[in-house]
Amino acid sequence: MSVDERGRTVAVVGATGAVGEVLLRVLEERSFPVSELRALASARSEGSTVRFRGQDVPVRLAEPDAFDGVDFVFFAATGSLSKELAPEAARRGAVAIDKSSTWRMEADVPLVVPEVNGAAVEKHRGIVSCPNCTTTPLAMTLEALRRVAEVREAIVTTFQAVSGAGLPGLEELENQQRARQAGEPRPEPRAFAAPIADNVVPLCETFLDNGYSTEEIKLLHETRKILDDPELRVTMTCTRVPVPVGHAASVLVETGRPLSAEEAREAFAAFPGIELIDEPERGRFPTQDMVAGRDEVLVGRVRRDLSSSRLWFWECGDNLRKGAATNAVQIAEELIGRGLR
Amino acid sequence: MSVDERGRTVAVVGATGAVGEVLLRVLEERSFPVSELRALASARSEGSTVRFRGQDVPVRLAEPDAFDGVDFVFFAATGSLSKELAPEAARRGAVAIDKSSTWRMEADVPLVVPEVNGAAVEKHRGIVSCPNCTTTPLAMTLEALRRVAEVREAIVTTFQAVSGAGLPGLEELENQQRARQAGEPRPEPRAFAAPIADNVVPLCETFLDNGYSTEEIKLLHETRKILDDPELRVTMTCTRVPVPVGHAASVLVETGRPLSAEEAREAFAAFPGIELIDEPERGRFPTQDMVAGRDEVLVGRVRRDLSSSRLWFWECGDNLRKGAATNAVQIAEELIGRGLR
Repeated sequence: MSVDERGRTVAVVGATGAVGEVLLRVLEERSFPVSELRALASARSEGSTVRFRGQDVPVRLAEPDAFDGVDFVFFAATGSLSKELAPEAARRGAVAIDKSSTWRMEADVPLVVPEVNGAAVEKHRGIVSCPNCTTTPLAMTLEALRRVAEVREAIVTTFQAVSGAGLPGLEELENQQRARQAGEPRPEPRAFAAPIADNVVPLCETFLDNGYSTEEIKLLHETRKILDDPELRVTMTCTRVPVPVGHAASVLVETGRPLSAEEAREAFAAFPGIELIDEPERGRFPTQDMVAGRDEVLVGRVRRDLSSSRLWFWECGDNLRKGAATNAVQIAEELIGRGLR
Repeated sequence: MSVDERGRTVAVVGATGAVGEVLLRVLEERSFPVSELRALASARSEGSTVRFRGQDVPVRLAEPDAFDGVDFVFFAATGSLSKELAPEAARRGAVAIDKSSTWRMEADVPLVVPEVNGAAVEKHRGIVSCPNCTTTPLAMTLEALRRVAEVREAIVTTFQAVSGAGLPGLEELENQQRARQAGEPRPEPRAFAAPIADNVVPLCETFLDNGYSTEEIKLLHETRKILDDPELRVTMTCTRVPVPVGHAASVLVETGRPLSAEEAREAFAAFPGIELIDEPERGRFPTQDMVAGRDEVLVGRVRRDLSSSRLWFWECGDNLRKGAATNAVQIAEELIGRGLR
């Protein structure tokens, strides 16, 4: 999407966090028209600096007055900060683009993956929400298939990187791995419900009364909202794996009209933001290691179920980029491109 | 199963490998009636020793003459060694208990998980096969459910430890992790098709022409054979995760009669060799870290699908123990218990 050259005042709340850091890089890489950058954070990070376009930018306290005269506020912080401050940003005339789960299911807040439902930004009332980092690649792959056949159900098992839990998640993996290499006792789990080094934790976030995790239920409701299909069946197990960056998922999808693997491959390859890497004869498939640092969702291992017309595939996305920062910046570009800002 | 006290002559082919080492420990722990132990291996390991009951046992070359007068030969080595030598062991009157995939699908070779189909050993003709380390826990969990309802389909995504590829797999993970900690270049993948440290590899073994891996197809055919149900639908994605020991899987199962999560939990808890760890309200679920070194299959996260009567669960088994060594020793105990040896 081309954007006009008028500079915008941009604020980033949570500028020192895992997503905030990547967001600054993505704004640079995409030459987003920033005339002024305000780096904001909670009191804990006040007084530090972040780098942006070769300058040290002081980190200020995230408070309502900091949004005066701002065009876009990217929220890359905790849900409680979004809940308190996103309406304040909107009230001051900014568009809040929120990465937290706070506003996603609100009826008057668009939940947007630009390649899938970019037009939804038209209805914003000051807040636009960015999906969960697991939802975004799933919504893209299902939309790619939906352009050639009805999608009825997705059965999903995720393999989610520790950076999905921010810097504390990254540090916990690193500290536990380092302790094992050094032969020291493994630090107790804090960011996750069980040890994460050399282990897989079949729980992301916390359990609900129905035995599902909050993360799992988000995947259902957010996917339905983005695809605007309240009947779509999505069922899932979400896990955390000892990988720093990159969320992967195995997906078994039931379509209305049966699709051949080749038709599905063509649908994936044709979809903006998806790259097909699927050459089993050459041993090529996507991995999290491969997608880290990239904006595309990678798809491979496309094949028909052996006993039905369902399709398996494997997808990987960078949870900090397309799962968070890149998607948020694309939402801002979508608003500019549509003359909404 | 109680075993009589008469000592048996036991040979272990592959005694210096990842499974062979655990097999010696399991024979000790279970007080298996060993009067003589012959530690056998390929020429590469000849001349080394292994520990058994406090003694150093010299490793001899695995060749046909080494099986003279032997009761049980445990094959914990490569498929080519099993293919060549298991018939030689049988011809000399031993029972070959084989961990490789070589003989599993042969019509006259029983494929046995004692808790599921122990009686199948009655039909042995000198060779009994031990299932793939991913199949064994799946067969147990499906059998547990089948005792209360028809099982129609299992949709499986696996998270398999590197030790499923033996010592080379363990060393590759270790070397790649150490290099990263030291800031050195990551050693090139050899045991796996992509880097395994800080990554997940959605390929176990090699690809077939239909886009599935050999490991995935084994899971289908072996499960059907063990459960004696050629109509059972099993569909799967098998992956390798950066975990030393323990295979996990997310499983979505369709039963004939709908089961409540509580009925399924009771069925798992009642099944020999399965331990239920499923207390989401206390944040308790099984992990690979938890199952490593244990003989039980751990099951948790039992819950109904939100849009159907299917059931999700999560299972973990130690791939070197119940997935290999323990199951092999249990097969020998089954043969003794039935007076077949």
